[in-house]
Amino acid sequence: MKVIRGGTVVTASDAGPADVLIDGETIAAVGRIGDVDAEVIDATGCYVLPGAIDNHTHMKMPFGGTWSIDDYDTGTQAAAAGGTTSIVDFSIQVHPDGLLQSLEEWQGRAAGTAHVDYGFHMAITNANDATIADMAAIVDAGVTTFKVFLAYRGALMVTDDQFLRVLQESRATGGLVMVHAENGDAIDLLVHQALAGGQTAPRYHAVTRPEVFEAEATGRAVRMAEFAGTPIFIVHVTCRAAAEEIIAGRARGVDAIGETCVQYLTLDVDDLSRDGLDGFEGARYVCSPPLRDRSNQPFMWDAIRLDHLAIVSTDHCPFNDEQKRLGLGDFSKIPNGLALIQHRVNLLWEHGVREGRLTPSRAVELLSTAPARVFGLTGKGSIAPGKDADIAIFDPAREHVFSKATSLMAVDYDLFEGRRTTGSVRTTLVRGTTVWDDGKILTQPGHGRFVRRATYGGTD
Amino acid sequence: MKVIRGGTVVTASDAGPADVLIDGETIAAVGRIGDVDAEVIDATGCYVLPGAIDNHTHMKMPFGGTWSIDDYDTGTQAAAAGGTTSIVDFSIQVHPDGLLQSLEEWQGRAAGTAHVDYGFHMAITNANDATIADMAAIVDAGVTTFKVFLAYRGALMVTDDQFLRVLQESRATGGLVMVHAENGDAIDLLVHQALAGGQTAPRYHAVTRPEVFEAEATGRAVRMAEFAGTPIFIVHVTCRAAAEEIIAGRARGVDAIGETCVQYLTLDVDDLSRDGLDGFEGARYVCSPPLRDRSNQPFMWDAIRLDHLAIVSTDHCPFNDEQKRLGLGDFSKIPNGLALIQHRVNLLWEHGVREGRLTPSRAVELLSTAPARVFGLTGKGSIAPGKDADIAIFDPAREHVFSKATSLMAVDYDLFEGRRTTGSVRTTLVRGTTVWDDGKILTQPGHGRFVRRATYGGTD
Amino acid sequence: MKVIRGGTVVTASDAGPADVLIDGETIAAVGRIGDVDAEVIDATGCYVLPGAIDNHTHMKMPFGGTWSIDDYDTGTQAAAAGGTTSIVDFSIQVHPDGLLQSLEEWQGRAAGTAHVDYGFHMAITNANDATIADMAAIVDAGVTTFKVFLAYRGALMVTDDQFLRVLQESRATGGLVMVHAENGDAIDLLVHQALAGGQTAPRYHAVTRPEVFEAEATGRAVRMAEFAGTPIFIVHVTCRAAAEEIIAGRARGVDAIGETCVQYLTLDVDDLSRDGLDGFEGARYVCSPPLRDRSNQPFMWDAIRLDHLAIVSTDHCPFNDEQKRLGLGDFSKIPNGLALIQHRVNLLWEHGVREGRLTPSRAVELLSTAPARVFGLTGKGSIAPGKDADIAIFDPAREHVFSKATSLMAVDYDLFEGRRTTGSVRTTLVRGTTVWDDGKILTQPGHGRFVRRATYGGTD
Amino acid sequence: MKVIRGGTVVTASDAGPADVLIDGETIAAVGRIGDVDAEVIDATGCYVLPGAIDNHTHMKMPFGGTWSIDDYDTGTQAAAAGGTTSIVDFSIQVHPDGLLQSLEEWQGRAAGTAHVDYGFHMAITNANDATIADMAAIVDAGVTTFKVFLAYRGALMVTDDQFLRVLQESRATGGLVMVHAENGDAIDLLVHQALAGGQTAPRYHAVTRPEVFEAEATGRAVRMAEFAGTPIFIVHVTCRAAAEEIIAGRARGVDAIGETCVQYLTLDVDDLSRDGLDGFEGARYVCSPPLRDRSNQPFMWDAIRLDHLAIVSTDHCPFNDEQKRLGLGDFSKIPNGLALIQHRVNLLWEHGVREGRLTPSRAVELLSTAPARVFGLTGKGSIAPGKDADIAIFDPAREHVFSKATSLMAVDYDLFEGRRTTGSVRTTLVRGTTVWDDGKILTQPGHGRFVRRATYGGTD
Repeated sequence: MKVIRGGTVVTASDAGPADVLIDGETIAAVGRIGDVDAEVIDATGCYVLPGAIDNHTHMKMPFGGTWSIDDYDTGTQAAAAGGTTSIVDFSIQVHPDGLLQSLEEWQGRAAGTAHVDYGFHMAITNANDATIADMAAIVDAGVTTFKVFLAYRGALMVTDDQFLRVLQESRATGGLVMVHAENGDAIDLLVHQALAGGQTAPRYHAVTRPEVFEAEATGRAVRMAEFAGTPIFIVHVTCRAAAEEIIAGRARGVDAIGETCVQYLTLDVDDLSRDGLDGFEGARYVCSPPLRDRSNQPFMWDAIRLDHLAIVSTDHCPFNDEQKRLGLGDFSKIPNGLALIQHRVNLLWEHGVREGRLTPSRAVELLSTAPARVFGLTGKGSIAPGKDADIAIFDPAREHVFSKATSLMAVDYDLFEGRRTTGSVRTTLVRGTTVWDDGKILTQPGHGRFVRRATYGGTD
Repeated sequence: MKVIRGGTVVTASDAGPADVLIDGETIAAVGRIGDVDAEVIDATGCYVLPGAIDNHTHMKMPFGGTWSIDDYDTGTQAAAAGGTTSIVDFSIQVHPDGLLQSLEEWQGRAAGTAHVDYGFHMAITNANDATIADMAAIVDAGVTTFKVFLAYRGALMVTDDQFLRVLQESRATGGLVMVHAENGDAIDLLVHQALAGGQTAPRYHAVTRPEVFEAEATGRAVRMAEFAGTPIFIVHVTCRAAAEEIIAGRARGVDAIGETCVQYLTLDVDDLSRDGLDGFEGARYVCSPPLRDRSNQPFMWDAIRLDHLAIVSTDHCPFNDEQKRLGLGDFSKIPNGLALIQHRVNLLWEHGVREGRLTPSRAVELLSTAPARVFGLTGKGSIAPGKDADIAIFDPAREHVFSKATSLMAVDYDLFEGRRTTGSVRTTLVRGTTVWDDGKILTQPGHGRFVRRATYGGTD
Repeated sequence: MKVIRGGTVVTASDAGPADVLIDGETIAAVGRIGDVDAEVIDATGCYVLPGAIDNHTHMKMPFGGTWSIDDYDTGTQAAAAGGTTSIVDFSIQVHPDGLLQSLEEWQGRAAGTAHVDYGFHMAITNANDATIADMAAIVDAGVTTFKVFLAYRGALMVTDDQFLRVLQESRATGGLVMVHAENGDAIDLLVHQALAGGQTAPRYHAVTRPEVFEAEATGRAVRMAEFAGTPIFIVHVTCRAAAEEIIAGRARGVDAIGETCVQYLTLDVDDLSRDGLDGFEGARYVCSPPLRDRSNQPFMWDAIRLDHLAIVSTDHCPFNDEQKRLGLGDFSKIPNGLALIQHRVNLLWEHGVREGRLTPSRAVELLSTAPARVFGLTGKGSIAPGKDADIAIFDPAREHVFSKATSLMAVDYDLFEGRRTTGSVRTTLVRGTTVWDDGKILTQPGHGRFVRRATYGGTD
Repeated sequence: MKVIRGGTVVTASDAGPADVLIDGETIAAVGRIGDVDAEVIDATGCYVLPGAIDNHTHMKMPFGGTWSIDDYDTGTQAAAAGGTTSIVDFSIQVHPDGLLQSLEEWQGRAAGTAHVDYGFHMAITNANDATIADMAAIVDAGVTTFKVFLAYRGALMVTDDQFLRVLQESRATGGLVMVHAENGDAIDLLVHQALAGGQTAPRYHAVTRPEVFEAEATGRAVRMAEFAGTPIFIVHVTCRAAAEEIIAGRARGVDAIGETCVQYLTLDVDDLSRDGLDGFEGARYVCSPPLRDRSNQPFMWDAIRLDHLAIVSTDHCPFNDEQKRLGLGDFSKIPNGLALIQHRVNLLWEHGVREGRLTPSRAVELLSTAPARVFGLTGKGSIAPGKDADIAIFDPAREHVFSKATSLMAVDYDLFEGRRTTGSVRTTLVRGTTVWDDGKILTQPGHGRFVRRATYGGTD
């Protein structure tokens, strides 16, 4: 048994001083814990938070002829260092007929390597009969969410009839459908036109993926769900125009749930024009949808404050400079993705809580409780008896400097190099075991386990 | 010490089996509680809920020459019988210059009589210099919310400049402004016209207070707050048109918080045409804003499910048939208000949770956690260590029949007479003391205490 | 020379008594015309209207293995009988590479056969390089509008990148893009599912093309134009949800122009369930998008009154019962289209003007002036000097009964059989020649000429 | 008889070369006019426009202890010099009970003095029984429009019940209600606060009348009309937020008609900070609602192009510098109003037509045809037989420099001093008589006549 003493326990509902008694992997009690025979973890002066959940990561993911550079070992070390105790990673359908083989491959890559718990979403890239037929089995396997891409034509994109089939089947199985909402056809054209016109630098990645096509695809996805009578989850909303389509759908009664990522709150499109690395530094900031004009940010903060958007994740998908250089002379070949999993909690606390935009409870809801509820991580997302003892101890006085030197992410740079926060994650426990403490990873690969997830309850 | 054993503890964040240890008035711990020297309350098979908070009640309120028939004794007995452990009642400014004397009068009427805890809002009816000058003192007294009426011309209504002064001062003091949003000028005209035209029956109450004037005033209130840079709380939203003004304001970044009341989800305008009591039964259903066409109800359920509206209260304001008969021959003299405080939890659970529209956690949020957060009841609204031991034990198998016979409300009828629910509140504790158990009130008047409330944190 | 005397001349701007002097094919003067050596056409008691323009017809169109039953002879006789003096018909790209050959074929079919003037839109079904390259030549040929279908997958549908290319090129050439806005992918799925489930009757045509997919595609089309910086024309808007997407786009500054068709104002989805003809009568009412629930109609009338929608056309595309029976046992094989060109003016006058929803000037604008302006029929659309003498003399006292007996349309039934109007077109002139008078066609095929159209001026 | 030869006649429907034959006061014919015994006015190279109608002027109006400096003589000379052939001026209810006496006073001041035709709106400032009872007589007198002010508390403002009574009675009489939509109560408070805080300069006029309170009052007015089942006319819309309330109302089916004024398209809030005249030059630019941030202007141009707003007027209400100086040291005492009647046509043509935002026909619609239709000037607003021969001959090649030297407005400055346009009104006829030609006024006071107006037809 362990007991965390002296901290301020924060849940999405409330915050106050309390001890947390852990029995094995589970929280046994919260409150005034008398003398018990237990290892004491001192949390004086600290917030005791439910471990953060990052429901949007891509570890060891094949993309554009390479693989994202974090595997489930390095990536989950970084997660733990940043207070994240569970991830839900994307298994991608890489075989055209059916889903089970692809899931097995992802399970295989993750097995025995992770430090924090992990689940999978199943991304459907070919929604034919065989694939649809597998969806129930995937849900039965505890993979209760399906993702479709309306972008990446020729690679991941589904057509709207495929999308609708997935929604229909998800209605039957209880699975929740997640959507990457950008208009892949239109973007594909713009990319070809840009390249044909000699516009090859990283910043054209953003030029060719304008806000309007994110808004369009978002509105389309919401309409699809409206017809299917299902909820819908819109991943990585970046801008006002797209968020307004979600608001409009919700006003019509659609349970449209939107997520944004921490980069859309803290970085912007000008980062794609950074001129280091012989003019190619901007490639590090290439992700999809792209970083946006910073004029969107006040709205985006309002959107997470007022619950127009329910979750802040990372879309962690890291690539080294060498990998990014695949796109030298052709921005469309730059692997898409940012290295962020370690930084989310610190960034959201700094700019959200410390700067007065969010209460601690709302931050916890965005980082942990809402992802747990939406994604069926029934044992996680709060500090409550019976829950897994997934806990982040956050020291609000601890100065933190983002740096490659302190990053556990496998990339050879840090996007926030030199930026500072006051407040940082000090200690991270996953199912009662301390994974990260004061700068060190204490577990071996394999401590993290696959989590079977429940289906979404249908109420946001 | 007491321990509630064997139940399923539900908070806004999560739900699961847990014991609750109570030390004196406070929750000491939640979880696996070993052997302790404590009175055991068995909650096997039951939900253990945070005591419900009714932030919208009118006990012993002067209205139209009479007084609402429940005082703080009977009204809070009924509250407890319905699982409500705190109310926030309205103190009305009945003296033109300043607020303190009015508050004292309300404090005096409540002192020593209540069974559950209570706070006050301060309704401002004359926002002159003396009144504005008192606002800070009112906040200091723990009355952190101010209400203005845009309706009831000649009685309670403020003009928009007064409204704006209240918003400005609330910005300075941290007080949250609540608004009764109906256009009093327009309604006043329609009432006079109806009476002049011989339309005197209760149903003309609804005819003369149409949805469009609620929508108008709601939009106006949101715009006022938008200018003032403050949050705004819209009480008793009844219909889609009004709710859409809130949604529009929130989309513009205004922290506009809407409440509906359980009657707008379960009764409708046709109830005003009930023909019992020699054609005057409809008078029992007269409240403002009025019950609406039932075509609004699916939207209203969506609105509380999707958090367009944040709270479900009652606007409890009971009048006997004899009092209602003040409006015989003139609907405008029917005292406005319904007797509902005892029924809210059962009704919302039946039609919300049992019928699949709400999760238990969302119901708890609507009934307790959100009111606590918005209204600064920092010691209430959740089951967590350090919180007041305000608890409702809800037995989902218990059959309940609404009836005058089982109502503790002072009115001589029951609006839901004969309607049934499966599931009912069995036991209610207020600060560790059992107030209601299995059909009986166990406390004496005065158990309930005045609660000083904190200011709204500014994040919804 | 001819002079029309004694009537009330109605234009979109005004209405008043005036004579109209015609010199050859052209209006020479309007007003008080003294003694002139001219044939007198008496219009006493009648409205003298600009000839109606039907910008949405399909004569002799290949569809689903058959051809629409009106050719440019019968179809334009019916047009003239209904007061329509110009049509803009759809030439369909039936050859994959380029547009010119298809246009030539359509020109060939029409040449020498029509009684009223005609232009062509060019429907693009394969927007490849060769096709895009032809667009400028098409515009030069006086065919200044291009249509794309977001429906009819596998037949006419374009993908969004093709759509965008057409928009981009239209921006360069000045061509206006028209969109059939239904989501073809989603509909295709629903159709297959319905047929697989044994739902084969005509009414399933409507079930499988729900409003939400029209709204979706409408919103998508508006977003595409928003990006391209072009105007966009949405054909045959049927319902509130779709019209609201147009309103939203216009509020963002997009010049999105919507058209509805007279059937969406006067028929409804229940007509698809008509049980005559051994249960197959409903097939006569199969068009796309389908007829809608009649609850849309008050909004649709508001929409044309308040200029949310700018034009009322017919989408005339007639098929005999025998042709409709291609879909016996499979609604998806029912040729889509209604026979309506003769009835538009009478229907809009009856239900619009006579019933008080529209002024005569607004009716003229919807039927003639707006189509002329939007579609570049610079010589038409008004009664003004220099304009073609295209005139409909409408007798408001003339009783009319819709009937196969009086229909000049080639179909073997009349959709409105037995319905009556008070007021009917008495006489129709095209470029100064009387084509229709008092029940008779007076011209030979070939009187109608191809009209080269100007490009849209870009201001609605 | 006169004949205008060689010009391009522009109406709201079309534009083309035509002669205009005038017989006495009336247009006899338009088109090819052969040899007639008539005075020839050469319009070669010019546009022949329907005389502009300015439906929003304040001649000789009492305001804040002074009178607007133009009377019906000087003001209508300036009107004619700017191509405006009719004005609809505001008669203000200056006697509390009833309207007739006030109208008589206005009629008396105007009688025998004007050069162009004029009508009156009746502004209602005290909607009591006597006043309402007079409305029918006012309509019978040809004054078919009523204005209410939601601003100017203590002077002109009506309460919402008064507003509603006016709407109800207007529904009965056919009168159209116009609204000055700013929240007078809120503004009144802000003005007092600003002055109390020493903020006395002209620019605080704008600070104390923010956009949000215009948007609020606009939304309120639309809701009022929605309830009353009447159309509503919103005068001088200045900004996006207010226009969006009109768009929203129209989308709900309300016939809400919006007007903007040429100053909101061409001047902006920074003009209130002009520092000439010892820092008081900004006072010249004080009007209500105030000039806005120029970021609104692209939207405002879209709004008139896309018919979200239907009319561009001036709200002409001129005050000399000496009068403006009444507000030295107290901006609230600066007489509100701008001198603009002479400049509207030239400005709208320059920035609208010449710069490509509007077609000539749309400009004519905004300046003349729409005001004529909405305000029941049945004999005006177009160039058509039977219409009054009110004509502006506009020479698109004529260079014009705005200047006090060439202004006929009575103020001792010109707001646009030194700004240039290419294109200017050369000749203006009112009922067949040339009032203005090539820089000179040719008529005597009294040529202009009172115009009885019809009621609004109810269709926008």
